[in-house]
Amino acid sequence: MEKDSKTISGDTEVKTKDGFLLSEVQEGSSKSSRPTLAILGSGDYSRSLAERLVRSGFPVVVGSRDPDRNRRLFPQGAEVTTRHAAVSQADLVFVAVHRENYPDLQADREALADKILIDVSNSTKIRKGESNAEYLAKLFPASTVVKAFNVVSAWTLSSGLSGGSKEVFVSSDDHEARQTVMQLAKEMGFAPVDYGSLLASREIEAIPLRLLPSWHLALKMSFGAFVFLLLYTLYRGIVFKAIDGQPDIPFQHIPVHYCNRALAGTAITILSFVYFPGVLASFVQLYNGTKYRRFPGWLDKWLLARKQLGLLCLFVASIHACLSLLEFSPAYYGRHFDKTTVTADGGVVFGQMRWSGETFLLFGALAFFLMVVLGVSSIPSVTNAMNWREFTFVQGKLGWVVLLLATTHMVIYGVDIFVSPFLFVSYTIAGFQITLILPAILILLKVVTLLPCVSSRVNRIRRGWERKVPGREETPNDGCQGDEMTSL
Amino acid sequence: MEKDSKTISGDTEVKTKDGFLLSEVQEGSSKSSRPTLAILGSGDYSRSLAERLVRSGFPVVVGSRDPDRNRRLFPQGAEVTTRHAAVSQADLVFVAVHRENYPDLQADREALADKILIDVSNSTKIRKGESNAEYLAKLFPASTVVKAFNVVSAWTLSSGLSGGSKEVFVSSDDHEARQTVMQLAKEMGFAPVDYGSLLASREIEAIPLRLLPSWHLALKMSFGAFVFLLLYTLYRGIVFKAIDGQPDIPFQHIPVHYCNRALAGTAITILSFVYFPGVLASFVQLYNGTKYRRFPGWLDKWLLARKQLGLLCLFVASIHACLSLLEFSPAYYGRHFDKTTVTADGGVVFGQMRWSGETFLLFGALAFFLMVVLGVSSIPSVTNAMNWREFTFVQGKLGWVVLLLATTHMVIYGVDIFVSPFLFVSYTIAGFQITLILPAILILLKVVTLLPCVSSRVNRIRRGWERKVPGREETPNDGCQGDEMTSL
Amino acid sequence: MEKDSKTISGDTEVKTKDGFLLSEVQEGSSKSSRPTLAILGSGDYSRSLAERLVRSGFPVVVGSRDPDRNRRLFPQGAEVTTRHAAVSQADLVFVAVHRENYPDLQADREALADKILIDVSNSTKIRKGESNAEYLAKLFPASTVVKAFNVVSAWTLSSGLSGGSKEVFVSSDDHEARQTVMQLAKEMGFAPVDYGSLLASREIEAIPLRLLPSWHLALKMSFGAFVFLLLYTLYRGIVFKAIDGQPDIPFQHIPVHYCNRALAGTAITILSFVYFPGVLASFVQLYNGTKYRRFPGWLDKWLLARKQLGLLCLFVASIHACLSLLEFSPAYYGRHFDKTTVTADGGVVFGQMRWSGETFLLFGALAFFLMVVLGVSSIPSVTNAMNWREFTFVQGKLGWVVLLLATTHMVIYGVDIFVSPFLFVSYTIAGFQITLILPAILILLKVVTLLPCVSSRVNRIRRGWERKVPGREETPNDGCQGDEMTSL
Repeated sequence: MEKDSKTISGDTEVKTKDGFLLSEVQEGSSKSSRPTLAILGSGDYSRSLAERLVRSGFPVVVGSRDPDRNRRLFPQGAEVTTRHAAVSQADLVFVAVHRENYPDLQADREALADKILIDVSNSTKIRKGESNAEYLAKLFPASTVVKAFNVVSAWTLSSGLSGGSKEVFVSSDDHEARQTVMQLAKEMGFAPVDYGSLLASREIEAIPLRLLPSWHLALKMSFGAFVFLLLYTLYRGIVFKAIDGQPDIPFQHIPVHYCNRALAGTAITILSFVYFPGVLASFVQLYNGTKYRRFPGWLDKWLLARKQLGLLCLFVASIHACLSLLEFSPAYYGRHFDKTTVTADGGVVFGQMRWSGETFLLFGALAFFLMVVLGVSSIPSVTNAMNWREFTFVQGKLGWVVLLLATTHMVIYGVDIFVSPFLFVSYTIAGFQITLILPAILILLKVVTLLPCVSSRVNRIRRGWERKVPGREETPNDGCQGDEMTSL
Repeated sequence: MEKDSKTISGDTEVKTKDGFLLSEVQEGSSKSSRPTLAILGSGDYSRSLAERLVRSGFPVVVGSRDPDRNRRLFPQGAEVTTRHAAVSQADLVFVAVHRENYPDLQADREALADKILIDVSNSTKIRKGESNAEYLAKLFPASTVVKAFNVVSAWTLSSGLSGGSKEVFVSSDDHEARQTVMQLAKEMGFAPVDYGSLLASREIEAIPLRLLPSWHLALKMSFGAFVFLLLYTLYRGIVFKAIDGQPDIPFQHIPVHYCNRALAGTAITILSFVYFPGVLASFVQLYNGTKYRRFPGWLDKWLLARKQLGLLCLFVASIHACLSLLEFSPAYYGRHFDKTTVTADGGVVFGQMRWSGETFLLFGALAFFLMVVLGVSSIPSVTNAMNWREFTFVQGKLGWVVLLLATTHMVIYGVDIFVSPFLFVSYTIAGFQITLILPAILILLKVVTLLPCVSSRVNRIRRGWERKVPGREETPNDGCQGDEMTSL
Repeated sequence: MEKDSKTISGDTEVKTKDGFLLSEVQEGSSKSSRPTLAILGSGDYSRSLAERLVRSGFPVVVGSRDPDRNRRLFPQGAEVTTRHAAVSQADLVFVAVHRENYPDLQADREALADKILIDVSNSTKIRKGESNAEYLAKLFPASTVVKAFNVVSAWTLSSGLSGGSKEVFVSSDDHEARQTVMQLAKEMGFAPVDYGSLLASREIEAIPLRLLPSWHLALKMSFGAFVFLLLYTLYRGIVFKAIDGQPDIPFQHIPVHYCNRALAGTAITILSFVYFPGVLASFVQLYNGTKYRRFPGWLDKWLLARKQLGLLCLFVASIHACLSLLEFSPAYYGRHFDKTTVTADGGVVFGQMRWSGETFLLFGALAFFLMVVLGVSSIPSVTNAMNWREFTFVQGKLGWVVLLLATTHMVIYGVDIFVSPFLFVSYTIAGFQITLILPAILILLKVVTLLPCVSSRVNRIRRGWERKVPGREETPNDGCQGDEMTSL
C-alpha cells in the first residue's frame, strides 16, 4: 500500500538542504528507493542471501532454471523468475552458482553486459593461479566482476545482526563497483574491507579455507612446552625409577598426578611466553636506539601471538586447577598437611593444611581468577567497551600481577624442598625448578627495564627520539598511543 | 559558532563528484545538514530517545503538555516546547505516549498530516487483532505510520553503542517511510530489519513480550532427561532399598551424591541431543535422495535447538564437575582409591587413586574444558571473529571430541562394575549404563555416515545431486557453504 | 583497471530515483567516488590510520617531513609525500603530530585554510584549561578543527572490525564539519557520538585517561565489605584467641580457611548491594508519590553501579568456591561429616557427608552457576541478543533466585550452630550470622514491595500516575519500558 500523501512538502531543490538522510524520501516519487538486486542460483546460499536482502529492505529477484519448482523455497518478498528475466531487472547481480556452472550463464551474456557481477563463491581446496572471480571476469569481459561475501556463510546470512558486524572482503578492478558493493555490504549489516584489485580475490578466496592461522604459532609453542615438561616429569617419576630398578613404578599416576605437574609448568611457561616478547622488544629498541627500525621477523610474529598464548595459558591453567582440586589431599600433598592421627578410641583426627599449603593455594587461586578476568577482557565486545588505558591496565599491569602471583605460588609450593638432596637422585632438578627458570629470567629483565635510567630512554625512544640521527622525524600524538604494540 | 569560511571551494555541481560522504557539507549552506526530529511525550522513554538522537547528531524538539515543568528532565541540545510547536518543525515524529492517549494527539491532526509518525509503543500483554501502530494509523489517516524501536528499551537508548548493534524491526505500508526510518535507525547505531507492511506491526509488538522462545525446546528436552534420570537414580538408590526393607536408607545423600549421578547422565544425554539431529538429517537426505525436500518439522526444530542444547549441557556439566570435586574422596569413590591403612604407631597412610580413578578424571576434565571452549565460541562477538571453517571445526569436530571424551569418561568410571551382579539387584541396570545407550547409538550412526560409500553419497547430495530426477537444479557455490545447516 | 563500460545506463537525472546507495556509481564519472584524505605525521598512529582508511576504501595521502625514508613504513595504497603536497590534495586532514609540533604546521597555513583539521591527539596527563584541539583551532583560525578518534588506539585501528563498533566522540564548533567527520567515522566502522561544540574536546581528551570510572564505587563498596569481614573473622579466629591466652593460635589458617570465610560473607554482601538500590528506589517513589522527581544522588550512583557490583560478586564468589573445594574435608568441615572410624583390622572407613553438608553444597553450587549465567548475559554482545523482557528476567528474577539460594546456602551451613553458646565466647556473633543480616533485611523489604497493595501503587507510579498533582503529564509507551532503570 503506497500512499499518495507521502510526498513530503514538494520540490527537490529546497529539500536537498536537509541532506542525505531523507534524500531517498524526498527525491523518490512513490516507488522503491533502493535498486533491485538479482541473484542467480537457487541453492541454500541463494535462499539465505535473498532472505537477508529482503530484511535489509532491497527488492530482490531470483533467477532460477526452474522457477516454478523453487519458488516455495524462497522467502516472501523475493520474486523468483527465469535467469534472463531476473538479470534484466537489476544492475547488481549476485552469482551464486558453482564455478563449473559459470559457462552456463553465458546464455545471458548480453543481458549481463555493463552490470556488476558479485562472485560469492568458495572453493573446497586452495586453488593455484586464477581465482573463481578472475575466471568469471574472463568469461564476462563486458561486465564488472566484484569478489565479495564469500566469507559469509548461509548460516550467518540467515541469523540475526546483533552481536556486531562480520567483516566482508571486497575486491574489484573497478573502483566504483567496489565502492558500491562495499556500501551494499554495509546496508546488509556487514563491515566491508577494501582489498583492492581483482587479483586480491585469490587471497580472499583463500580466507575461508584457513583454520585459525593466528593460533598456529601459539599452539606450537604451548604444545612444545607441554611435551617437554611431560617427558621431563615422566623421566623423573617413571623412567628413572624403572632404570633404577625400583619396585612399584607408579604408572597409575600418569593421568592426573604427573600430567598435572606438567600442566602446572606448562601454564607458567606459556605465561612467560606472553610477556617475554614485550620485554625483548624494549631491549631491541634500546639496542637500535630508535623505534623506526622493524623488529626481526620472529619477534614480530611472537608479539602478534601474545593474545592466543594468553588464552591457551588460561585453558591449560584451568585443567591444572581442576586436577589439583581433585587430587588435593594428604595422599598426594602430604608435606603440606599436618599428620592425620588415630586416637586411642579408634577415632581419626584429620591433619589440616600447613601454612605452606594454604598460602600456595591462595596465590594459585588468585592468579587463576585474575587470569579469567584477562580472558574475559579479550572477548571482542568487552574489549570494545574499554579505552586503551583500561585495556593496557588489564592486559599489562594485571597480567604482570598474575605472573608474579603464579611464580610465588610455585615457589611456596616447593619452598621446603628447594635444596633437598632428594631432588638430585635422578641427576636432574625437580620439574617445578625447571619451570621457574623462565619466569625468573623474565622478571629480572623486566626489573632492568624499570630502572629509571633504562625506562626513561625506552620512553624517549617510544615517543620518537632517535640516537645520533640527523633528520629526526615528527612523531604521532603526544600520548602513549603509538607505543601500544609493544607496551604490554 | 558557525563559520563563514566553511564552504569548501564553492559550487555544488563540481563537488558532487566527490561522492556522498561529503555531500552534506557541499550541498548544505551553513545550517544543520540533518532533519529535525520531533518527539511527542516526556516520559523516561522520550528522555532516553532524545539523548540518543542528540548524541547521533540530530536536532531534536520535544513536544510536551507541560514544557516548562519537564524541560529540566531533558538533555541539553533537545528543545522542549509544546506539542504543536514541536510537530510543526519536523517531518519525522516519534509518538512516545501510551496507546490510551493517542486520541489526545488528534488536536494536532492537521500539523501531523503528511508526516511520518513513528510508533514506538509496547503492550504489556499480547493483544489480539489491531496493533497499536494500526490503531494510530486509523486515527491519523493523512499521516504515514511506521512501527519501529519498540524492541529498544530506554536503558539501551541511554547506554553506549559499543558491543554491536541491536536489531530494530521496522514496518510500514509506505515503502519510502520504511526506508527513511531504517536509515534513521542505522544513524542511531541500530541494525534495522525490514518487516514489510504495517500488518507486521502485530508481530513486531509481540517480540518484546517473548521470553527466550529459542530456548523452550532445549529446556524441555534437558529438563525431561534430568527428571527421568533423577527418578531412575533415586529408585535404585532409595526407593528400592526402602521396598527391600534395607536399613539406613541414605536420604542424606540425595542433594549431592544422587543429584550428581543424575546430572552426569543428563550432561551426556544433552550432548547426544546436540549431535543426534545432524546425523538424522544425513539419513533423511540419504533416504530422500535429495536435499531439496524439507526435513520433517520436528527435525527442523531440533536442528535449530542445538546451540541452546549445547549451552544447557555446559551448564549441567559445570554443576556436575563442581559436585564431583566436592565429593571426590575415598568416602564416595572407594573403588577408585587404594585402601587407606593405619600403621602400627597410629599413623595413617592415605590411599591414592587407582589407574581407573586418574584416567576417568582426566577424560572428564578434558571433556569439560573443551566444552567451555565450545561455549566461548558461541558468544556472538567471538563467533563473528571466526570464519565458517573455524566455526564448524570448533562446533563440529571439537564437539565430537568432547562427546567421545565424555563417553570414555563414563565407560572408565564404571569399567569394573560393568558386569558386576550387584548391578542387577534392583532388577535394573546402573544409571551410568542407561545413559551410555544414547551416546553409543549416536556414535554408531555417525560411524555409518563416515563409511566411504555412505559419506560420498551424502556429500554428493549436499552439493545438489539428486537421485533419478530429470531437471537437475543448479547449486550454490562450490564449497561447503550451502551445507552448514546440517553439517555439524 | 577502470572500465569505460561502467556507466550504468546513462544519465544522472533518471538514475537519482534509485536513491543514495548507488549514487556514487551513477554520479561519478570514472574516477574515485570518495574524497581523498590527508594525514600529517608518520608515526605508528599515522601508519595504522592510513591502513584503516585504505581498507575502508578511501584514497589516502600522507604528509611526512621525510617522505623518502618513511614510505616503506606505510601500507600499499597510501601515497607518502611532503606535507604541502598532501594537504593540497585533500579537504579533510588528520593531524597526527604531537601538540608541541603543532606550530611547525603553520608553514602550510594557507594550504590548510578552509579545510577540516581532525585533531586525534591525546595527552598523557589531564590538562587544565585549553585542550589540544582548542590550541590547534587558535593556531589555524581559517581552518575548521574537529576533535575525534583520540579514543581509538593504533592497535584498534589495525585490528579487525568484527566484534562490534567502538565509540568515537566527535566535537567541533562547525556543525557541518562534525557531521562529516561522524559520517567518516561510520565509514571506518566506528560508532560516532556527537559531543557538540569544540569546548567538549576537553572532556573528550580526558576520556582515554580515565581508568574504569564506572567501577570505582563498586570496587570501594566491595573492598570495604571484604576488609570489614576479614577483620571480623580474624578477630574471632585469631586476635581473640591470642588475647584469651589460648595455645596454638591458627595463624597458618589465615590464607585459605579464614580468607574463605571472609570471601563467602563478602560475596553475599555484594549480592545484597546489587539488589538493595532497586528496592530502595521503589520506596523512594512510594514516598514521593511520583516518578517525576529525581532520586537522591547517592541512590542514582548506586543504581548505576549494580552491573559492576554483580560482576565483582561473581569474581569473589569464584574464589570462595575454589577455596571451598580445596578445603572441603572432615579436617575443616567436621560437623558436616559422619565420623571416620578405624576397624579392628586396621582398615579405615571414611565418614560421608551429612544431610546438612550435602544440602548447603548443592545450594551453593546452584547459586554459583546461576550467577555465572548472569555474568555471561552481561557480555555486551550477549546482552544485545536479548530483548528487554529476557534481560530483566535473567538479571532480575534469576538474580533474586541466586540471592535466595545463596542465603539458604549460608543458613543451612550454620543451621546446627545458630544458637550454640560457643558462638558467643568472643562476645561477638559468628561471621556468617553478621553477613546474613543484610540479605535478611533486603528479602524482607522485597516481600513488602510484593504485597498487592504496595505493588499495585508502585506499578501505577511507574506508569506515570502521581499523587495529588493537578496537571498530570502524559507518560511514555504503555509498557514496562520506562521503568527499567529501577525495575531489577
